[in-house]
Amino acid sequence: MQTLEHLPPLLRRYGGVVFLSAAPVAVALEFFAPERHTALFFASILAIVPLAGYLGRATDELAGHFGGAIGGLLNATFGNITELIIGALALRAGFTDLVKASLTGSIIGNTLLVFGLAALAGGLRHRVQHFNRTAASLSSTMLLLSVVAMVVPAVFHSLSQHRGAGTELRMDTEIAVVLLLTYCASLIFTLKTHREPHQPSHSTRRMSVSRSFALLLGATAGVAWMSELLVGALSEATRALGMSELFVGVVVVAVIGNAAEHYSAVRMAIRGEMDAALSIAVGSSIQIALLITPLLLFLSYAIAPTPMNLLFTEFEIVAVGFAVLTIAMIAHDGETHWMEGVQMLAVYAILVLGFYFLPSGG
Amino acid sequence: MQTLEHLPPLLRRYGGVVFLSAAPVAVALEFFAPERHTALFFASILAIVPLAGYLGRATDELAGHFGGAIGGLLNATFGNITELIIGALALRAGFTDLVKASLTGSIIGNTLLVFGLAALAGGLRHRVQHFNRTAASLSSTMLLLSVVAMVVPAVFHSLSQHRGAGTELRMDTEIAVVLLLTYCASLIFTLKTHREPHQPSHSTRRMSVSRSFALLLGATAGVAWMSELLVGALSEATRALGMSELFVGVVVVAVIGNAAEHYSAVRMAIRGEMDAALSIAVGSSIQIALLITPLLLFLSYAIAPTPMNLLFTEFEIVAVGFAVLTIAMIAHDGETHWMEGVQMLAVYAILVLGFYFLPSGG
Amino acid sequence: MQTLEHLPPLLRRYGGVVFLSAAPVAVALEFFAPERHTALFFASILAIVPLAGYLGRATDELAGHFGGAIGGLLNATFGNITELIIGALALRAGFTDLVKASLTGSIIGNTLLVFGLAALAGGLRHRVQHFNRTAASLSSTMLLLSVVAMVVPAVFHSLSQHRGAGTELRMDTEIAVVLLLTYCASLIFTLKTHREPHQPSHSTRRMSVSRSFALLLGATAGVAWMSELLVGALSEATRALGMSELFVGVVVVAVIGNAAEHYSAVRMAIRGEMDAALSIAVGSSIQIALLITPLLLFLSYAIAPTPMNLLFTEFEIVAVGFAVLTIAMIAHDGETHWMEGVQMLAVYAILVLGFYFLPSGG
Repeated sequence: MQTLEHLPPLLRRYGGVVFLSAAPVAVALEFFAPERHTALFFASILAIVPLAGYLGRATDELAGHFGGAIGGLLNATFGNITELIIGALALRAGFTDLVKASLTGSIIGNTLLVFGLAALAGGLRHRVQHFNRTAASLSSTMLLLSVVAMVVPAVFHSLSQHRGAGTELRMDTEIAVVLLLTYCASLIFTLKTHREPHQPSHSTRRMSVSRSFALLLGATAGVAWMSELLVGALSEATRALGMSELFVGVVVVAVIGNAAEHYSAVRMAIRGEMDAALSIAVGSSIQIALLITPLLLFLSYAIAPTPMNLLFTEFEIVAVGFAVLTIAMIAHDGETHWMEGVQMLAVYAILVLGFYFLPSGG
Repeated sequence: MQTLEHLPPLLRRYGGVVFLSAAPVAVALEFFAPERHTALFFASILAIVPLAGYLGRATDELAGHFGGAIGGLLNATFGNITELIIGALALRAGFTDLVKASLTGSIIGNTLLVFGLAALAGGLRHRVQHFNRTAASLSSTMLLLSVVAMVVPAVFHSLSQHRGAGTELRMDTEIAVVLLLTYCASLIFTLKTHREPHQPSHSTRRMSVSRSFALLLGATAGVAWMSELLVGALSEATRALGMSELFVGVVVVAVIGNAAEHYSAVRMAIRGEMDAALSIAVGSSIQIALLITPLLLFLSYAIAPTPMNLLFTEFEIVAVGFAVLTIAMIAHDGETHWMEGVQMLAVYAILVLGFYFLPSGG
Repeated sequence: MQTLEHLPPLLRRYGGVVFLSAAPVAVALEFFAPERHTALFFASILAIVPLAGYLGRATDELAGHFGGAIGGLLNATFGNITELIIGALALRAGFTDLVKASLTGSIIGNTLLVFGLAALAGGLRHRVQHFNRTAASLSSTMLLLSVVAMVVPAVFHSLSQHRGAGTELRMDTEIAVVLLLTYCASLIFTLKTHREPHQPSHSTRRMSVSRSFALLLGATAGVAWMSELLVGALSEATRALGMSELFVGVVVVAVIGNAAEHYSAVRMAIRGEMDAALSIAVGSSIQIALLITPLLLFLSYAIAPTPMNLLFTEFEIVAVGFAVLTIAMIAHDGETHWMEGVQMLAVYAILVLGFYFLPSGG
C-alpha cells in the first residue's frame, strides 16, 4: 500500500539515497566491523524502511491484478509481513519481550501516532473530516478484543504466580485461536458480506504479475536479511544507547517499522480521504493484534527457545487500553478535526514518556 | 417472557420430554440415590429450565392482564425471580462466592452471549439491524453503574486488608441501596415519564388471572424445590467434575439459568425485532445487577451464615467491565450486523477461557 | 461566570447575609479565638463562596469589555482562579495530598455532581435536552487525557517503588507540560479556528473596566486571605471532624469551592440551555485537569516544601476514570434526560461512599 514513489520529489531524491544506501552500509558493517553494533542497528533499521515500501508496492500490484476479494485478502494478510518477519527472527533469537513490546508499539503507534498525525495534518486543511462510522465502530471493538486478550492472561498470571506456566501458555494459545478466528470472520465481513460497493484503488498498476512476484520475493528476502542484522545488533546497541529493551521495542522499532504507514495515512488525510487514512492506521493495528500476534505465538512453538505467551507488562496493557479508548471516543461520531489529532498525539506523548522513564523489566 | 411453546416443534417435542422429565428424575435421585451428586446436579439444573419458562409465561400473562405500567412493573420485578430463588437458597447454604459468581455470569452471559448470539443470528438474515439508541445508551450506563459498584469495594478491600470487614459490609450495603434506588428511578423513567407510545406485546393472552396466579405459585415452588436439590448437590458435583466453584457459577449455572432468555432474544433478532432482543438480553443484565444483587445482599443478613458483601474477585470485575465496554461500543450507534455478534461472542469466549483455567479461589 | 445576583431573591437576601458575614466572622475568629479551628474552617470556606462569585463576575465583565477571543481567553484562564489560589496556599503549607484530593474532587464533582444535577433539574422540565455533540466529544477526550496523566505516574510508581523519586518528578513535570500544551491548543481550537459563530453572552455589562479590575483585585485578595485562614485551620479541623484529609479534599473543599458552578449550571439547564450547562460543568473540569493541575505543579517547585508530583491515590484514579467514562457514555449522543442525571448522581454517590469509608492514607 506504500511505496517510495509516493514521497515528495526532494525527499525522494535525497531521503531515497539515505534509505537505499542503508542496506549496503549494513552489509558492509556486518562484514568489516561487526563490533559497531549501534551503527549496524540503525543502518539495518533504515534499510528496512524502503524494503517495507517495496513489499507494500508488490502486494498492492498483486492485489490489483487479482482484484476484488482476493486482492483484499492479499492486502489484509501481507500488509504487515515486515512485522511478521522481524518478529519471527527476534523470537528465534530469544527476544520474546522485545517482540511483544514491538507489537504493543505498533498498535499504539498506528492508532495514536499515525492516525493522530493524519487527523492533525488533514484537519489543518479541512475544517471537519468525515468517515464511515460503522467501519470505525467495528474497528474500535476489534481493538477492544485485543485488550481483553492482554488483560485476561495478566490477571491469570497475577493470581497464579510461579505455578502453572504450562497452563498459562495453553490458555494463551487458545485465546490466540479465538483472535485469529475473529480476524478471519472480519475478513469475510469486509471482503464478502458487507463489502463497500466501489472502493477506490490507490495504486495504478504498472507491473506484470511475474515482476510483482519477483519484487515480493526479493523484498521479503531483503527484509529478512536486514532483520537478521538488526536482531544480531540489538542487545549491544540498546545497552550502548542506554535505553530499555521495552522502549526500543515500543518506540524505536515500531515507529521506524511503520514509517510507510505514517506517510501514506497522512497523505490520504491531507487529500481529504479520511476513510483511507483510518483504514491504513487502525486497520494495521488490528492486523498486528489479531493476525500477527497469534501467528507469532504459533510460530514461536517451532522456532523460539521458549514459546511466546500473551503476558504483556502492566504498562503495555495500560498503553493499549488507552489507545483503544481514545480511538473509540474520537472515531465514534464519524468525524475528526485537527484538535482531535492533537489529543491523540498528546496521549501518545504521555505514554511514550512513561515508556522512556520506566526502568528495565517494568 | 419465555415459554416452552415458543420452541420449534421438534425441539419442543423431544427437548420438552428431556426437560420435563428432569424434575421427576431429580426428585427420584434425591430419595433413592442421594449420593449421586453429579447426576442430581445436572437433573436439577435441567429441571429449572422449563420451570423458569413457566414462571416467565405466568408473569407475561399477568402483565398482560394488568397492562400498562403495572404490567411493565411485573415484568421488571419478576423477570429474574428464578435467579433470586436459586441465589437465596445458595446463600442460605453458605455458597456466597458461588452466588456472586452466578450474578457475574448472568451479567456477562446476557450481555455478551445472549445479545451476541442474537446479533449474529439476526445479522445472518438482515444486513443491518436497527434499534433505539437512547434506550441502548441508557442501558450501557446502568451497567457501568454496576461496574462502579464492584470496583469501589474491591479498591477499598485492597487498601484496608484484614481490618474493618464490618466497615466494608456497611459500605457495601449503602452502595446496594444506591443501586436499588437507581433501579427504581429507571422504572419510573421507562414505565412512566418516557414510556414508549405503543410497545408491541409479544404474548397472546390465553389464561385467566387466577390460572396465571396458580401457575406463578406452582412454578415458583418448583423452582425453589429444584434449587434446593441443586444447592445440596453442588459441592460434591463440582469436585467430581474438577471445575472450580467460580467456573460453575459464572458459566454452568448462569448459562443454563438464562436458557429461556437466550432462546427468546435470538428468536426476536431473527424476526428483526432487535429492540426486543436488546431489551431481553441487556434488560435482564441490568435487573440482575441493580435489583437481584441488592435484594440478595439485604436477604443475606436474614438467611445467610454470614452476610454477602459486594467484594467480587478481580477476574469477575474485569469480565463485567469488558462486557459493559463491549456493549457500550457496539450499541451506541443503534445498529448491529453479524460481525458485531461475532465480536461479542469472541470477548465472551476469551473471558470463559480465563474462568476455566483460573485456579480455585482466584 | 457566576455571581450572587443570579441567586433567587430569597436565598440572595438571607443566604447572602450568611455568606457575606462569614468573612468578618473568620477574621474575628482568627484574631480572638484562633484555637477554634473547626469554626474557622467553616467560616473561611463559607466566605470563599461569595468572593468566588465576585471573581467570576469581574472576569465576566472584563471578558465582555474585551469581547471575542480575548474575552474567551480571560474566562478560560481566570475561571478557576479560586482553586488556583487555595491550591497554591495549601501547597505552600505542605498539604500536597489535600491539594491533589481537591483537584480530583473538582473534576468528579463538576462532571458528575454539577452536570448530573443540571441534567436532572433540566430533565424534569424538558423531556429531552439537546447539546452540541462535537463539543461534548472533544471534552470527554480532554478528560480522558487527564486520566492517562494520572495512570502513567501510578503505574510507574508501582513498578519502581522507593527508588527514583527524582525521575518520577521529572516525568510528571514533562507530562504536565504536555497537558498544558494540549490545553493551549484547545483554546486555539475553541476561540479561533472552530469558534461558534455567535455565542450568546450570559452577562449584561454594567461595570466600567477600571471598576472590574478593582473588583478582580479585591476579590482575589479576599479569596487569598480566606484561603490562608482555611489552610491554617485545616489539620485541626479535619481531626476534630473525624474525616480523612482525602475526604475533606475530595468532597468538602471541592463541593463548596465549586458552589457557584453548581448554581449556574443548574440554572442554565432549567432554562433549556444545556450547551451552557455542559460548558460550565465539564469545561471547569477540563480547566482544573489541564490548566490548574500543571500550573500548581510548576508553582510547587517555587513555593512548596517538596514539589507536587502527579501521583494520585488508586481510589482517586478510579474515581476520575469512572467520571470520565460516565460522561463519555452519557454525552456522546448529544442529548440527556432526567434519568441520565440520576445515573451521574448515583455514580457520584457510590464514589463518595468510597471516599468516606476509606481509611486515611488510602
